[in-house]
Amino acid sequence: MTTKKIVEGILNSDRSILSKAITIIESERKDHQKKAKEIIKNCLPYSGNSFRIAITGIPGVGKSTFIESFGQHLISKGGKIAVLTIDPSSLESKGSILGDKTRMEKLASKKEAFIRPSASKGSLGGVAKKTKESIILCEAAGYNHILIETVGVGQSETSVTSMVDFFILLMLSNTGDELQGIKKGIMEVADLIVVNKADGKNIKNTKIAVAELKNAIHLQAERKSNFPLNALSCSSINNEGMKEILITIKEYAKCTIKNGYFHTKRKKQNEAWLKNILLNELTNNLNEKNNISNELKKLANEVSTRKIDPYTAVEKLMISFKYLKKR
Amino acid sequence: MTTKKIVEGILNSDRSILSKAITIIESERKDHQKKAKEIIKNCLPYSGNSFRIAITGIPGVGKSTFIESFGQHLISKGGKIAVLTIDPSSLESKGSILGDKTRMEKLASKKEAFIRPSASKGSLGGVAKKTKESIILCEAAGYNHILIETVGVGQSETSVTSMVDFFILLMLSNTGDELQGIKKGIMEVADLIVVNKADGKNIKNTKIAVAELKNAIHLQAERKSNFPLNALSCSSINNEGMKEILITIKEYAKCTIKNGYFHTKRKKQNEAWLKNILLNELTNNLNEKNNISNELKKLANEVSTRKIDPYTAVEKLMISFKYLKKR
Repeated sequence: MTTKKIVEGILNSDRSILSKAITIIESERKDHQKKAKEIIKNCLPYSGNSFRIAITGIPGVGKSTFIESFGQHLISKGGKIAVLTIDPSSLESKGSILGDKTRMEKLASKKEAFIRPSASKGSLGGVAKKTKESIILCEAAGYNHILIETVGVGQSETSVTSMVDFFILLMLSNTGDELQGIKKGIMEVADLIVVNKADGKNIKNTKIAVAELKNAIHLQAERKSNFPLNALSCSSINNEGMKEILITIKEYAKCTIKNGYFHTKRKKQNEAWLKNILLNELTNNLNEKNNISNELKKLANEVSTRKIDPYTAVEKLMISFKYLKKR
Repeated sequence: MTTKKIVEGILNSDRSILSKAITIIESERKDHQKKAKEIIKNCLPYSGNSFRIAITGIPGVGKSTFIESFGQHLISKGGKIAVLTIDPSSLESKGSILGDKTRMEKLASKKEAFIRPSASKGSLGGVAKKTKESIILCEAAGYNHILIETVGVGQSETSVTSMVDFFILLMLSNTGDELQGIKKGIMEVADLIVVNKADGKNIKNTKIAVAELKNAIHLQAERKSNFPLNALSCSSINNEGMKEILITIKEYAKCTIKNGYFHTKRKKQNEAWLKNILLNELTNNLNEKNNISNELKKLANEVSTRKIDPYTAVEKLMISFKYLKKR
């Protein structure tokens, strides 16, 4: 299929073509990568018009069930939603278990929803290597809410925090003490904390957990967004609490668009994206079979046999790198 | 303190100086970084003579308690052990909760043990930015077993798997289904799986879990190390199962040293380390206030206002990068 046909398909909101395009973007084949750049370039002018939301939390917290419920609520309010789920991949074989789609059956059957699982492969920060690019294609296809389901969060340019407008941390009421450290870190980047599974005999514990979270939040410094962090609860299986969550998100959007934070953040994210593409380009130079790569291997050998220390070796490599393109 | 004094202190196994040296290595101050390189260069000839072990598992699996127990067993067999624990850091403030030391009270009181918590900060793959360098200093100080406690595992050069000889995955008997994907990935890099908390009413479940794991292992392809993956159980609080774990580790070391895998792996790790230092060097070039950095900001702005697409922008940046050092 030609690039033109693919772009047309995306702009016509053709889910099957959109899915194929994401496959091309995620492919590591050289010809695919070239095509991918063209597709993205052509979709970029139609991107940016969605609200991007990350949903994170430990395994077992109920992320898929939450998205199943929250997604349907969004659609009932006129939304068109794209769900990008990140699968923890097998590290060595690079295989991945793409079971998420079947876990959101009701949502998958709606014509206003597009669900796409991606393998995280070597990528870190809880996203797939091309999540940022996939967002752009989904936006060009007219989806006005992008939900990203992820198990992790990092601090690099490839982290999910550098791709979204809003960050929901899902929690359970019975989280142990050892998680405090992690919680603290994620709480600082979260825009909303939602205690899930507020149903059955969990209801009482959930109320306590929400109260404790509100207390902990109280002690936090003021937030860059100028929008107060809040803790809510929900029951995904009973479709309860979704309305309140959406109201909070809408208030957040209104507040941060008004105070300029929304656009400042997106600008910074673009800077991070650019830096990321640049570093990828530089890394590719190292991985390809060229002089740098050979010299790296030779020097690594010398480091192993202690003929040279790694810092002196890198000084040598930096000199080679500088002249790489000129040879 | 002069570099010479510090290196002497390390070689004399002075724990207080060793600790100070790691602080210098982890510091981002320019003068500290320069000093750090000198310290590492001087310690390198005395490094490499330990067995390096990573201990990973989800929060709550009992990593600290396991190390407390296993570490004492190692010492009882004549070992000198350094424990490097990685604290999940606060993401925004870069603060960290260094509570691990107090969680290994008995071990901390032994003169044959050195325990050092480090903040993971922005680093990924479950390690701190300078874990590799810290290992070198600990080895120079005469510790012959390095234990690295971490919550995560990645696939990059900065991952814990690229720093250790042996990888222990701690598990619980009641791990839910949703963890299967993650388990599969980690199982492929693990050299030994240990089901912890085989005590009290957990004993029966542990036996079932170990049997299931052994079955799952059976289906795996042959391993690069040529040493079969195994599943054991232990009770850290009752000091049970440590002997069997150490026997497995010793057998692994014997087998992989004999078949050459041990040294091939270390050689590859050195290559990864070198590449990592080189990429850091390149990234620093981007972060410093120089022409590249300014151009990056300018172009990011243009990407945000859609005057340029990011790929064309990176092409421009690559040209600037090439001539950076010549200006």
